[in-house]
Amino acid sequence: MSEGSIAADGVIDTQTCRTVRVDLGERSYDIVIGDGLIAESGARIAALFPGSRVAIVIDETVAKHHLPAFEASLEAVGLEHETFTVKPGEGSKSFPVFQDLCDRLLAARFERGDVVAALGGGVIGDLAGFVAGVVRRGMPFVQVPTTLLAQVDSSVGGKTSINTRHGKNLIGIFNQPALVLADTKVLDTLTPRDFRAGYAEIAKYGLLDDPDFFAWLEENWSGIFEGGPARIKAVAHSCEAKARVVAMDEREDGVRALLNLGHTFGHALERGVGYDGALLVHGEGVAIGTVLAHRFSAEQGLCSEADAERVEQHLAKVGLPTHMSDIPGQLPGIPELMRYIAQDKKVSRGALTFILTRGIGRSFIEKDVDRDAVEGFLERSGDKA
Amino acid sequence: MSEGSIAADGVIDTQTCRTVRVDLGERSYDIVIGDGLIAESGARIAALFPGSRVAIVIDETVAKHHLPAFEASLEAVGLEHETFTVKPGEGSKSFPVFQDLCDRLLAARFERGDVVAALGGGVIGDLAGFVAGVVRRGMPFVQVPTTLLAQVDSSVGGKTSINTRHGKNLIGIFNQPALVLADTKVLDTLTPRDFRAGYAEIAKYGLLDDPDFFAWLEENWSGIFEGGPARIKAVAHSCEAKARVVAMDEREDGVRALLNLGHTFGHALERGVGYDGALLVHGEGVAIGTVLAHRFSAEQGLCSEADAERVEQHLAKVGLPTHMSDIPGQLPGIPELMRYIAQDKKVSRGALTFILTRGIGRSFIEKDVDRDAVEGFLERSGDKA
Repeated sequence: MSEGSIAADGVIDTQTCRTVRVDLGERSYDIVIGDGLIAESGARIAALFPGSRVAIVIDETVAKHHLPAFEASLEAVGLEHETFTVKPGEGSKSFPVFQDLCDRLLAARFERGDVVAALGGGVIGDLAGFVAGVVRRGMPFVQVPTTLLAQVDSSVGGKTSINTRHGKNLIGIFNQPALVLADTKVLDTLTPRDFRAGYAEIAKYGLLDDPDFFAWLEENWSGIFEGGPARIKAVAHSCEAKARVVAMDEREDGVRALLNLGHTFGHALERGVGYDGALLVHGEGVAIGTVLAHRFSAEQGLCSEADAERVEQHLAKVGLPTHMSDIPGQLPGIPELMRYIAQDKKVSRGALTFILTRGIGRSFIEKDVDRDAVEGFLERSGDKA
Repeated sequence: MSEGSIAADGVIDTQTCRTVRVDLGERSYDIVIGDGLIAESGARIAALFPGSRVAIVIDETVAKHHLPAFEASLEAVGLEHETFTVKPGEGSKSFPVFQDLCDRLLAARFERGDVVAALGGGVIGDLAGFVAGVVRRGMPFVQVPTTLLAQVDSSVGGKTSINTRHGKNLIGIFNQPALVLADTKVLDTLTPRDFRAGYAEIAKYGLLDDPDFFAWLEENWSGIFEGGPARIKAVAHSCEAKARVVAMDEREDGVRALLNLGHTFGHALERGVGYDGALLVHGEGVAIGTVLAHRFSAEQGLCSEADAERVEQHLAKVGLPTHMSDIPGQLPGIPELMRYIAQDKKVSRGALTFILTRGIGRSFIEKDVDRDAVEGFLERSGDKA
């Protein structure tokens, strides 16, 4: 990670920002993190793709907040652009929207050397990244994540996808962006709830293999919510952690599965509410899932009850849900949740794979988890809830 | 290329076959070519993916001819399988069929470690390869091409795609198979017309950079149509030629574009007949396009009229169409064909890219072809037709 001011070719930038390099051979790219980066997006894109046209994929909500500034930055460096708006929400990660976007980009004559810019949260990044990956068998794309969740998780690592009736993210490709621009200032427009949801993924990086970072978060979380240097540090540290894992295992054949701590339970819960963001957003599912993963690990004698308690305490303190009973409305029964878990794409040859833990920052991949043990645990968790 | 009998682990094979290695680093794979290979598909797949389930993607016509033998070979080695049938023809390379196949594979619980087998021609290979590339962000796939065109062209190189209303192959990914099994004996079930269509691509490899191969074809083409060693040699030589180009330029950023000799004109003609295979199949479009590319090169003073004449003579001799007027029914006007050409995905920043030639086996990429010159040439070609 490099720190300090940057004044590269065509990029006028006198502010402090951080750059994290994702090291993937010929697919390597930079994640740039800093306050106010949107204003220099155009210059940074033009530096990589001079003379290209930019297809901006964005949802209606983000367009209201950030589209004018982004367009102005493209125009400032003479990049032509066209905007493709979709409806906000997980519902846009669907076959029909995917097909429609592909068709619209082709109708607008975007070519292989042009650029797709994904300006938005995880939904936009996943959708636009998939579209960019398949239009003319692949156009370059740039991620401009506007949510905390997208900045620390989905914009790093090249996973793109849409959902199907069989589950979330089951159709997609690995497609690395050419550049990620994480403007930490735009996070001020998030609702506290959405900010917290992203924070759940930040906490995850501590819980994976970095107990010092988790301890730092316990001390400094309110600074991250307030903005400024603590936020930039937390985002950069998270991106660096994820980039390290992704560089070791780009296509999730091994260690990358660690990043799914809390996600197997979380995905099942998200599906349980029909992906209704009013009831549960992804980061909240991850928060509950992370607590469940620690509680289950404790029940299996792998980690201490105290560690599980500490995780729950911290996530609850920042205002995240930590129990299934924190989800409004009616969840499906445990057998139904178990069916979702078994259909999760991390299933291998019928055995259940979970990320479990031996303590704070000591997570590991367990590929042979007993289905009945999980089911019993969930039933008891539901009772306690 | 290695020759001779193979008796590797689990593969019972006493016949003569040839293996061409496609050298793409961690994505390298073998193309095995020989008479009767379908019978040992199961053993060869099991050697690479022991214990996997096989999702067979096939069209109704190919299923009638070859599905029982393929299924039997899987059962002989204990591989579970499920068959996903689509309608024959280019119409299956569409968004709805793509989505439906993805859904059906997920419904049947195929997992990342399972295998998609594309048993059929180019349509099946392109479609199944794309589906395999996106289900759970990528399952391995095996190509078992059953047409000559697929054996010498589409099954080599990892291009997968579907068509859209904006043109052919505009949506897809580069996705290399794990193995290609080209059974030269199954080509006996092709109609003479379909065999000839595949032959157009074989001739192309001679015209690209191998005048000796083209001369060999002029002498030996009837042996290829009859079957046996000449056919195996022609298929293997073609695969080797394509593999060499693909290894140099997997994602078609440069030299791989050479393989499109005859294809820019050809695609426009295919689109001109609404992709109606009754009027024009891909290889026939390539045959006409190849003659047009040579005639245009001659008109531009790049190659001799005699060379263009020689190409036309040979393709006509094997029974391929060589003029636009050989296409039954009404083609769109030249302005409309020009519009299709300009929308071809090989367009870069608005300039027309064509593969032109300085003579037999001396093709080259020309990125700055004058639009008016092409339009005038096509008008004159139409007149002469």
